[in-house]
Amino acid sequence: MLTVNAYAAPSATEPLIKTTIERRDVGPADVLIEIKYSGICHSDIHTVRGEWGDIQYPQVVGHEIVGIVSEVGSEVTKHKVGDRVGVGCMVNSCGECDSCLAGKENYCLKGNTGTYTAVDRDGSITQGGYSTHIVVVEDFVLKVPESIPFEKAAPLLCAGVTTFSPLAHWNAGPGSKVAVVGMGGLGHMAVKIAHAMGCEVTVLSQTLSKQEDGLRLGADDYFATSDPETFRKNSSRFDLIINTVSASIDINAYLGLLAVDGTLVNVGAPSEPLGVQAFSLIGKRRSFAGSNIGSIQETQDMLDFCAEHGIAPETELIAADYINEAYERVLKSDVRYRFVIDIATLA
Amino acid sequence: MLTVNAYAAPSATEPLIKTTIERRDVGPADVLIEIKYSGICHSDIHTVRGEWGDIQYPQVVGHEIVGIVSEVGSEVTKHKVGDRVGVGCMVNSCGECDSCLAGKENYCLKGNTGTYTAVDRDGSITQGGYSTHIVVVEDFVLKVPESIPFEKAAPLLCAGVTTFSPLAHWNAGPGSKVAVVGMGGLGHMAVKIAHAMGCEVTVLSQTLSKQEDGLRLGADDYFATSDPETFRKNSSRFDLIINTVSASIDINAYLGLLAVDGTLVNVGAPSEPLGVQAFSLIGKRRSFAGSNIGSIQETQDMLDFCAEHGIAPETELIAADYINEAYERVLKSDVRYRFVIDIATLA
Repeated sequence: MLTVNAYAAPSATEPLIKTTIERRDVGPADVLIEIKYSGICHSDIHTVRGEWGDIQYPQVVGHEIVGIVSEVGSEVTKHKVGDRVGVGCMVNSCGECDSCLAGKENYCLKGNTGTYTAVDRDGSITQGGYSTHIVVVEDFVLKVPESIPFEKAAPLLCAGVTTFSPLAHWNAGPGSKVAVVGMGGLGHMAVKIAHAMGCEVTVLSQTLSKQEDGLRLGADDYFATSDPETFRKNSSRFDLIINTVSASIDINAYLGLLAVDGTLVNVGAPSEPLGVQAFSLIGKRRSFAGSNIGSIQETQDMLDFCAEHGIAPETELIAADYINEAYERVLKSDVRYRFVIDIATLA
Repeated sequence: MLTVNAYAAPSATEPLIKTTIERRDVGPADVLIEIKYSGICHSDIHTVRGEWGDIQYPQVVGHEIVGIVSEVGSEVTKHKVGDRVGVGCMVNSCGECDSCLAGKENYCLKGNTGTYTAVDRDGSITQGGYSTHIVVVEDFVLKVPESIPFEKAAPLLCAGVTTFSPLAHWNAGPGSKVAVVGMGGLGHMAVKIAHAMGCEVTVLSQTLSKQEDGLRLGADDYFATSDPETFRKNSSRFDLIINTVSASIDINAYLGLLAVDGTLVNVGAPSEPLGVQAFSLIGKRRSFAGSNIGSIQETQDMLDFCAEHGIAPETELIAADYINEAYERVLKSDVRYRFVIDIATLA
């Protein structure tokens, strides 16, 4: 066992604190990663505060991880010591179900093993990336291309692939009219990726406060959803809408923005049900869909795509002892657009 | 103008009565059809009773029409006198919008012209198929293959294409696991068509009262949705669910029956919104979609497919003076599975 520094939540109601946790010994198929940067995802906050269900404490979160391979198991072939690598929202899956065999580990029928709060194969609870080291089976470790600035690479592992996957799956590309709902950590990556894919990109945000950023990052249009005119002007316009907002929305108003055969994809899940009028779908053969992160192959494809197109998230680098303050700012949407923890400050 | 016999609703609350209506003179692109058989669709009842909005009276409904061409306009090239033809739910569309240009007249962006209660191009209100004759532009007239028994062909024009279109669009075929919700006029056609397409077909009906029929018509499995075990047993099983039921359902329970990447398609529209939990979609990249009848090309493809596979609806032939009684039986689901009016009784 390896004892490593980490920032953990001692309970649902206390601030995160610096502590130590145990990492398992490096097994034959494992990779030991010295973590360099770790992104802060809104999911981390929901999780440690018990808002998505009870968890065991202390708990370390973080599933946007990049670092350097510092040791590999005897059977590891994909990675070697010194490689720049990343780990996203999952660290394992059953490997045997139809989804896993089809390369869709994110839809593992037995449930993939989340990077934190999941029961690992040895029975322990997985601990995330706010930590100096992590041990992960090699198949769930991604290669981070040299051209992506390392401190900006971390958020790609969740925010990047969560938006890339539905854009790719629903064939966004030149000629596609794509709308991105929400201009936060996920939304700003969706704008960059969809723009690089050649789509016509429109941001639908509550207000116009981030309009300048949106246009700079690649949006062609930017509308405030607080203005009812937005829904009239853009009626039946989009082939694909990526909804990154987890708060409840007037789903029928958004479905009305889809063209014939268009799809609205939720990548976040509001806790309340969304009241869909079937007429909103039938009249134009529209679809309302959901998408969950991305597969390992899609994650690698996304990293390679971002390297090729020179795309990286907009980030604010922080020290580990700023995490609790960062959480408060995330809750106020006061970050442009992703906090990244410099893990050197945790050493 | 041609004065023809018809069965019309005098108001929202009175029974339908025998009367006469006017049909326009045959224009250069028109076909005059001597109607032989006309199906009774549940939509007819909603419409004449004003349940889908106010309409003008008297109104003739019926959009499952087959007959013989008795006159053609000077520019007609697709049909000739004596041809067996059909007319479905629409009799025109703008012909200029993206949908029409793409051969999706059913999704015409200006709204296609419905076979009844729509404003026709001459400003008159379209009148449907409970009538001895109808005049329709040739592009919206289908060819009914000789091998389909004529009295059984009528329901294909709505019930047939409304289920064929989503099955074809979502690529149902050998290996597909398809569920059909509801075993009525549309449902029983969905079973026959999906079976002929080579799918594994499961019927999900409120009770097992029509199980024997379902299995005879091509279903491999048949479950009662009143039994909660049905939802446990069939969890994550289906690639495609065709929901023919217009009543409100527990949508999340049905979405839970979809496999990864599966789609539930509503072809009927409950008046109440359906409370979709985003988690029901996200965890398996499921879609909830809607589909509206079918295009003219799909309708012809469906007719040719039914002829090739020897498929026809199960029908009960009635005289025109039985229409009001038939309506009451439709409302009680007391028909196996479609009433067809013998228009000879209206002459």
